[in-house]
Amino acid sequence: MALEETVQRSRHGGREARRRERAQKSAGPGRPYISRNIPTYDILSEENLLKIEAAADRILAETGIEFRDDPEALDHWRRAGARIDGLRVTFEPGMLREILRFAPAEFIQHARNPANSIRIGGNSVVFAPAYGSPFVMDLDRGRRFGTLQDFQNFIKLAQSSPWFHHSGGTICEPTDVPVNKRHLDMVYAHLRYSDRCFMGSVTAEERSEDSIEMARIAFGRDFVEENCVILGNVNVNSPLVWDGTMTKSLRAYARANQAAVIVPFILGGAMGPVTNAGAIAQSLAETMAGCALTQLERKGAPVIFGNFLSSTQLRTGSPTFGTPEPAIGSMVVGQLCRRLDLPLRCSGNFTTSKLPDAQAMTEGTMSMLAAVHCGANFILHAAGFLDGLLSMSYEKFMLDADLCGALHTYLDGVTVDDNQLAEGAFAEVGPGNHFFGSAHTLANYETAYWDSETADNSPFEQWELAGSDDAATRANRLWKQRLREYEAPAMDEGLDEALKDFVARRKSEMADAWY
Amino acid sequence: MALEETVQRSRHGGREARRRERAQKSAGPGRPYISRNIPTYDILSEENLLKIEAAADRILAETGIEFRDDPEALDHWRRAGARIDGLRVTFEPGMLREILRFAPAEFIQHARNPANSIRIGGNSVVFAPAYGSPFVMDLDRGRRFGTLQDFQNFIKLAQSSPWFHHSGGTICEPTDVPVNKRHLDMVYAHLRYSDRCFMGSVTAEERSEDSIEMARIAFGRDFVEENCVILGNVNVNSPLVWDGTMTKSLRAYARANQAAVIVPFILGGAMGPVTNAGAIAQSLAETMAGCALTQLERKGAPVIFGNFLSSTQLRTGSPTFGTPEPAIGSMVVGQLCRRLDLPLRCSGNFTTSKLPDAQAMTEGTMSMLAAVHCGANFILHAAGFLDGLLSMSYEKFMLDADLCGALHTYLDGVTVDDNQLAEGAFAEVGPGNHFFGSAHTLANYETAYWDSETADNSPFEQWELAGSDDAATRANRLWKQRLREYEAPAMDEGLDEALKDFVARRKSEMADAWY
Repeated sequence: MALEETVQRSRHGGREARRRERAQKSAGPGRPYISRNIPTYDILSEENLLKIEAAADRILAETGIEFRDDPEALDHWRRAGARIDGLRVTFEPGMLREILRFAPAEFIQHARNPANSIRIGGNSVVFAPAYGSPFVMDLDRGRRFGTLQDFQNFIKLAQSSPWFHHSGGTICEPTDVPVNKRHLDMVYAHLRYSDRCFMGSVTAEERSEDSIEMARIAFGRDFVEENCVILGNVNVNSPLVWDGTMTKSLRAYARANQAAVIVPFILGGAMGPVTNAGAIAQSLAETMAGCALTQLERKGAPVIFGNFLSSTQLRTGSPTFGTPEPAIGSMVVGQLCRRLDLPLRCSGNFTTSKLPDAQAMTEGTMSMLAAVHCGANFILHAAGFLDGLLSMSYEKFMLDADLCGALHTYLDGVTVDDNQLAEGAFAEVGPGNHFFGSAHTLANYETAYWDSETADNSPFEQWELAGSDDAATRANRLWKQRLREYEAPAMDEGLDEALKDFVARRKSEMADAWY
Repeated sequence: MALEETVQRSRHGGREARRRERAQKSAGPGRPYISRNIPTYDILSEENLLKIEAAADRILAETGIEFRDDPEALDHWRRAGARIDGLRVTFEPGMLREILRFAPAEFIQHARNPANSIRIGGNSVVFAPAYGSPFVMDLDRGRRFGTLQDFQNFIKLAQSSPWFHHSGGTICEPTDVPVNKRHLDMVYAHLRYSDRCFMGSVTAEERSEDSIEMARIAFGRDFVEENCVILGNVNVNSPLVWDGTMTKSLRAYARANQAAVIVPFILGGAMGPVTNAGAIAQSLAETMAGCALTQLERKGAPVIFGNFLSSTQLRTGSPTFGTPEPAIGSMVVGQLCRRLDLPLRCSGNFTTSKLPDAQAMTEGTMSMLAAVHCGANFILHAAGFLDGLLSMSYEKFMLDADLCGALHTYLDGVTVDDNQLAEGAFAEVGPGNHFFGSAHTLANYETAYWDSETADNSPFEQWELAGSDDAATRANRLWKQRLREYEAPAMDEGLDEALKDFVARRKSEMADAWY
């Protein structure tokens, strides 16, 4: 007899209602983000951390970083005392660390629904969907270019799940919208179809400004001046180059007191050395420079220390994702970031698989566990990532959402108190008997155990009778059901109109550009 | 241009030869087991560990454990000073810990090929195939009862892979052999088709004795008296019952100075409480009792502290595997075991999926990473496990073997030295250039980066042209290729004859029994 059937006899109410209640309890409005209850996994000694920091300092002092197409960034560095030689900037050891002391160790990103505002930093953990793929795919239609419809669909799927805390940014490229106007439709969609936090565009300074302006319309100009309501994810052009598009965007976010996420993207062997320690040192150098530039633009602006390590299949030159080197390297990046006392973005649910199959979830799970072990506060790419980020997969999104749910339980760790120790239960049950109907089980079953939506735990015969589906097939049914059931969060009509007006006006001011 | 092509121009020899060389280097005879280079992941405070230990002590002192059908075990406990009430044994706090001081913190298990002998304990990590499923399955034939042929196939697949260190035990049940004779064919197969360490039978005292006797034939009677050459995996009949079949077997192994692996199998909510801390305390109590009994049988006999936590889907009563509670609980079990200074067996590659699909590898990877993080020295069920251990899957075996390979790299951690820091490379390459042809890359590419056998990292178009295979399909091709290529390790003909004679004689002494 199943446990819940046992329990049902002694209680009122239906099974489904209790299941919903259980999901609510652990995931509802009371849990806008995770507060980790397990320590970070610190794998490297103080001595070795110091060596990596010293290597990063030497890279910064001897080779330096080029800042291209942004004279104001060079002016910032000049005023701060860095050495400038053409576009090349070199830094005295310790200089960037000194500047970074102004950046907050943690901050609040406010959501349209205040119950969904999140803390980024300290022991908080936030899951956000994957970011940036040109393609989308599902089991029915295969791979194709992403559209605005797909983009909206993924926002709705994320919003419908209790396991995300953030609506993300460019979940997929809406390639049916002109390149220079996409950001307007994307920011509108985040604001309209989600009531969680979100990210704006960074692909041009004016698109960053537009994104922030839309946030001002939603949250009020004065509020935005004092509070973080939007993130912008900017990439280093590794190795050791910051280009103007990115630095102008990161400065736009900082200037508006909004948070830039500073992310070197290092494919080892290509944009960095093939050895982990060297790639980590490079990443540290590049990220410190980017984070420090936000502080030169506006002292005290929130900023997130980001990282995206990856490796290469040296036989073919193909990038690889979800491999062991970046996973274990993430733990070191986490340690280095905490020594700078900055919020961390690191790792995510990475894979090169072209399908939501065994490879995808082996690589994704290893990578995603690294993200939670290394102490990442903001985990971008937590769901949907396929094919080295070229595709956003509807099915993998649901499988990954489920993993995010499991990680809520994982990060809760092991609680040790009288109830959890269950001492009375042993006397009650005694040797050789089962715990199904014990008082302790009845008192705890509603909150006990993560219950997956996509896993099949039924007996083989039952699974076979039901059609022998694999996990991807179950995920396919689930995302369709979620889209059918989706209801948009309430939005003030005046706000909706104001946002639409802004989008329409800005679009009318520009000719379409498709590149 | 791919890196290896770049490199090929400056070196002699073919690509395939170098690939084999690279695999050899990291996995060959020089690496019979892994010496972990990253710390264990310790998640619980001293205070909470003490609380769990105290709870275990109270379970042992107040509820106690039943020892059924083994009067000699009760005699052992009586002589050791435990309280006996019928079959129920209770223990003064501290009594078992005192006995366990005699058990070795680590020991060598010797392999037929001395180069494959392993260290169990300390910072060593050993991977062994899954154990005990009645069914096998592959993509061609689906699920069916396991046969001796399947059993031999899995031994050959394990032996062919550099990523296992142990041949395992009852990899699948050879159901075409009578129950009372299987152990003879299984031990013979391990000795004949593998030259790594292995496990013997435990399903009856005389089968344990037979297994050990065959080890004596292979290693010499005197050698076996002084050295561990065979393991026996015995399960507690949780909650809090040790039955005679198991205690007689564990005593047989201990008596012969061979190592028993002591494993409570607790499905939370059924054989233990639904709360993690309570299940862990129960497990600690049960394992300490089993381990201590080996020391009462023979002081100083090697023994392994084992654990198999799992959870239940409370909606249905179905067992679940690869879920977050056992994963995170394993870290605590590891801490508790190290406080007893015993070698640890914990977790493995668990799943309830019926296919080698996304679910299988999400659950398996979470579970397997817990095994390496918690400090397990002997990781049974590292490959093949499907359907809650009811099926041994040929394809999942290959996918899991690949994950075991990745974990070799993972456990190597991040090395920090001049070469790994690659400082010269930054000056050489400079901002904005790539590292493909740099001197540092050329010097390191042969040992850089884990290279998966089952993952597909190729571009989408190339993958599509090649047939759009998923990982399971690639694994299907791979196991067939490995079986075709398999060559048995050399064995002295006299030894082979002696083993065959023993098997034939023992079989002739018993009528077939099928239950």
